[in-house]
Amino acid sequence: MITSPNDVIAAVATPVGEGGIAVIRISGLNAIGVADAVFTGSVPLREVRTQTAHVGAIRTQSGEIIDQVVALLFREPNSYTGENTVEVSCHGGFYVTRRLLARILEAGARMAGPGEFTRRAFLNGRIDLLQAEAVADLIHAKTELSHRTSVQRLEGTLSGIVRDLRNDLVNISSLLELELDFSEEGIDVADKHEIGQKISSVIGQLGKIAGTYRYGRISREGVRAVIVGKPNVGKSSIINNLLNENRAIVTDIPGTTRDVLREELDIEGILFTLSDTAGIRTGKDEAEKEGISRAHTEAMSADLILYVADCSEPVSDADRKIFTRLKESNSLAGTIIVGNKKDLLRTDDNFLREFISDDPNIILCSAKTGEGMDDLRSAMVRIAVGTDHHLGEKNICITSIRHKDAIEKAITGLEAALDDIRTAKSNEFISLNIRLAIESLGEIIGEVTTEDLLNNIFSKFCIGK
Amino acid sequence: MITSPNDVIAAVATPVGEGGIAVIRISGLNAIGVADAVFTGSVPLREVRTQTAHVGAIRTQSGEIIDQVVALLFREPNSYTGENTVEVSCHGGFYVTRRLLARILEAGARMAGPGEFTRRAFLNGRIDLLQAEAVADLIHAKTELSHRTSVQRLEGTLSGIVRDLRNDLVNISSLLELELDFSEEGIDVADKHEIGQKISSVIGQLGKIAGTYRYGRISREGVRAVIVGKPNVGKSSIINNLLNENRAIVTDIPGTTRDVLREELDIEGILFTLSDTAGIRTGKDEAEKEGISRAHTEAMSADLILYVADCSEPVSDADRKIFTRLKESNSLAGTIIVGNKKDLLRTDDNFLREFISDDPNIILCSAKTGEGMDDLRSAMVRIAVGTDHHLGEKNICITSIRHKDAIEKAITGLEAALDDIRTAKSNEFISLNIRLAIESLGEIIGEVTTEDLLNNIFSKFCIGK
Repeated sequence: MITSPNDVIAAVATPVGEGGIAVIRISGLNAIGVADAVFTGSVPLREVRTQTAHVGAIRTQSGEIIDQVVALLFREPNSYTGENTVEVSCHGGFYVTRRLLARILEAGARMAGPGEFTRRAFLNGRIDLLQAEAVADLIHAKTELSHRTSVQRLEGTLSGIVRDLRNDLVNISSLLELELDFSEEGIDVADKHEIGQKISSVIGQLGKIAGTYRYGRISREGVRAVIVGKPNVGKSSIINNLLNENRAIVTDIPGTTRDVLREELDIEGILFTLSDTAGIRTGKDEAEKEGISRAHTEAMSADLILYVADCSEPVSDADRKIFTRLKESNSLAGTIIVGNKKDLLRTDDNFLREFISDDPNIILCSAKTGEGMDDLRSAMVRIAVGTDHHLGEKNICITSIRHKDAIEKAITGLEAALDDIRTAKSNEFISLNIRLAIESLGEIIGEVTTEDLLNNIFSKFCIGK
Repeated sequence: MITSPNDVIAAVATPVGEGGIAVIRISGLNAIGVADAVFTGSVPLREVRTQTAHVGAIRTQSGEIIDQVVALLFREPNSYTGENTVEVSCHGGFYVTRRLLARILEAGARMAGPGEFTRRAFLNGRIDLLQAEAVADLIHAKTELSHRTSVQRLEGTLSGIVRDLRNDLVNISSLLELELDFSEEGIDVADKHEIGQKISSVIGQLGKIAGTYRYGRISREGVRAVIVGKPNVGKSSIINNLLNENRAIVTDIPGTTRDVLREELDIEGILFTLSDTAGIRTGKDEAEKEGISRAHTEAMSADLILYVADCSEPVSDADRKIFTRLKESNSLAGTIIVGNKKDLLRTDDNFLREFISDDPNIILCSAKTGEGMDDLRSAMVRIAVGTDHHLGEKNICITSIRHKDAIEKAITGLEAALDDIRTAKSNEFISLNIRLAIESLGEIIGEVTTEDLLNNIFSKFCIGK
C-alpha cells in the first residue's frame, strides 16, 4: 500500500448492517476541510474546538440533505490516529451510510485500506505494534480469556516489559561499544562477567515470555479440540450437550464462511473450537483402524483430543490398543478419554476400569443424563490450558507466532553473545550479536519495521479500524 | 411497555457485528451518573460541558479495564432523546460490547426496548411521529427513492403541511365555537359559505396527500413484481440478466430470514422485489391453465406482473387467451408482456406482432444477447411508478397505511361537515365533524396518540435506535 500521510482517508468504522447509528471516520491533515465541504452545521468545523460534537447535515453537491448527522471533531494529535479526525455519526442503514461515504470520497477523501486508521495511529506513535495487534484481537475476541489478554496488550503492559528488556540490551551494547573506543588505551569499561550475567538474566526473562505463547495462542484462537471415536458411542450427544450449555456467542456475519463440522464453545471463558469427525462415515470393519489413524492425524494439529467410547460396552483388543496408543502418544495434544453412556453401566468388568484407577484424563459421563459432564468440562479446561503459563496474574502473554519467532531469534543472538564472551571474542562480535537481539525485540513492538511486516499485520484488520 | 421518564436506558446503537468501533448509548435523567460509575477519564463526566468527548476507560467493579473508550456527553435538552445522554464509543467486537453493556446495566441502566430512544425523542417533543417513523424507514432504505422520501419526512416537510392543514381546521372550528357563544345574541361571526370553501380546499389538499400513498408505499417497501410464464420461455434468464445489472445492495444480516424465491432489484433507484414462480413445476398439459390462474392469483397482491413468453414460438389459442385476459384484467397491477428470445425471432408471422403494434406494455427482448433488456427495465419503472403522484418535486408522500387511513378519516369528517353546512345544521354538529378531522390529522404527526399506537410503531424499530 502506498500511503501519503497527507492523504485524507475515510471509511465506515462501525459493523456492516442495520442499526440505530453508524459512524464514518475521516482522518488526515485536511480531514476537517473535507468534512466542511459536505457538512453544514451552525458553524464550520474548522472553527470549533477539539473533541466537540456538532449537529448538522451532510448534503449533496446540489444541496439536498443526505442525512442529519452529528460531527465529532478531534484535532491532531488528540485523536485515535494522531491526525485531524472527524467522526460522523449518522443513521445506521446500508444505503444511507454508503451514500454518505460516497459523498465524503467525492469531496476529496480516499477509501481507507484495512486497518489503515490503526496503522496511522502506529506510524504517528500513538500506539506500538503490540497494541495495534491487540486492537484487532480485542475486536475479534469471543470469550473472557481472549478479551482479557488483548486488553492487557492494549494497555501496553507487555510492550513495557519488552521495551525494558530491549533497553537493558541497548545499555549493554553501548557499554561494549564505548569500551571499543577506549580499546587503544586498554581501559576496561565493561566487566565481561557482569555483562554475561545480565545477558543470561535477559535470556531467562525472554524464555519466560516465549513460554507464554501457547497460552496466548489459545487465548486468541481458542483451543483446537477434536472429537473422535467409533460410530454409535454418542459423539453427537456429547457435542450437543456441550453446545446447549456452552455455545460461544454467535459471530456469523456476512462474508464469513463457516465449516459446518466446527462448533465453538465457551467453557469457563475459554474458546474451544470443536471439530467433529462424526460426520465422516466409514465401513464397519474399517471403523477401528480408521479410528486410530484419524485420531493420530488430528492429533498433529489439535490441542485437545476427546476420544469418546461407550463405557457400557465390553472392551475389545482393538479398543485397548487405541487407548494405549493415545495415552502413549507423543503428540502435543492433551487427550481425554470420554467414557459415555455411564447411565447404562451395570457390571464391574468394564474395560475402562483398567485405565481409570486415578487417571484424571479418563472421564465417565452420560450425555443423556448430564452426569459427569461438568467433570468433562473441567477436564477440558485443565488439560488444554491448565499447565500453560502467562506472566504474573495479569494474563500477560504473547499471542502470535510473529512474537514467538522474534523472541527466539533474540535468544539465539544473546546465546551467541554469551558464547563470544566465553571464548573471549572481541567486543565487536559480542555487540553484533546483541544488536541482532535488540533488532528482534524492536520488531515486536514496532521500533524496527518493514513495509511488508506492516502490510501483513494490517491487511488482517477490517476496513474502518 | 411501562416506561418511566426517570429510567436510564442503554443499548448498543450500532449494527450487530465486528467493526472498528461500536457505540453504546445511555439516556435518561441520571445517564451521566451511570456513566460516571463505570467510566474513568481525566475528569468526571458530570463536570464536563455538553457535546464534548472524553478519552478514558470503562472498568469492572474491581477496577479491571474492560475497554478504552471515548465518552461523548450530551446534556438535556441538546441530545437525540432530549434527555441527558452519554454515547460510549468502544472497540467494535461482539464480546467487548456485550461486556461493556452488561457493566452499564449493572451500574443502574436498564436495557432499552426497540425504538425506545426515538420514542423518548418523540415524547420529549424533539421530533414528531412522522419524523420518528422516517428514522426507521431511513435506516431500512435500500435505494435512492426510499432514501429520498424518508429524508424528506425526517426533515419535517410533510409534517409541516399536515400541521398547517390541521391549524386551518382548528381556526375554522374555533370560529364556529366562538359563534356559538354569541348565538343568543344572533351575531353571525362565521360566514358559512366561506367556511364551506375553506373546508373544500382542505379536502382537496388532503385528497392529494392521500393520493401519494401508492408512491410512498412503493418508495418504502418497493414494487412487488411477479414473473410468470410457461416453462422454458426463459424466466430464469430474464431474472438473471436483471440481477446481474440491478441487484439491490446486500442486506442479509443475522436474524433475517430470506425467501429464496424473492430477489431484490434496484432499477433507477427504485426497489423491485421480484417473486419468481418459475420454481413451481406443473404437468405439461396443466401448464397453460396454471399460467392463467397463477397470473391472476399473483395479480391480487402484485404491483407489476411480468408475463414472459417465447416470442420465437408460434401462437396457440391459449396464449392468445392469456394475453387478452392479462390486458383486460382489472387488477391494480400493471402488466408487461415480455417477449423473450428475440434473437431467435425469424418469421413475420409471430403471434406477438398482433399485440405489439404500438402497445408500450409489450417488450421484445433477449435475455441471452441483452437486446431490449434496457427497454424492459424502463418499462418496469414507467408502469410501476410512472403514473404515481407525490407532492411537488420534493418526493413528499405518505408511506404507511396508518397515514392513509387517518387522512381518509379526516376527509370523511370534513365531508360530513360540508353536508352539515349544506343542510344548515347547527354549529355544534359542524364543529364536531371538524374536530374528528383535526384528531385524525393529529394522529399522523402524533399530537394525538395512544399507548397502543406508539407500541405498534416503535416495536418495529431495532434496539439501540
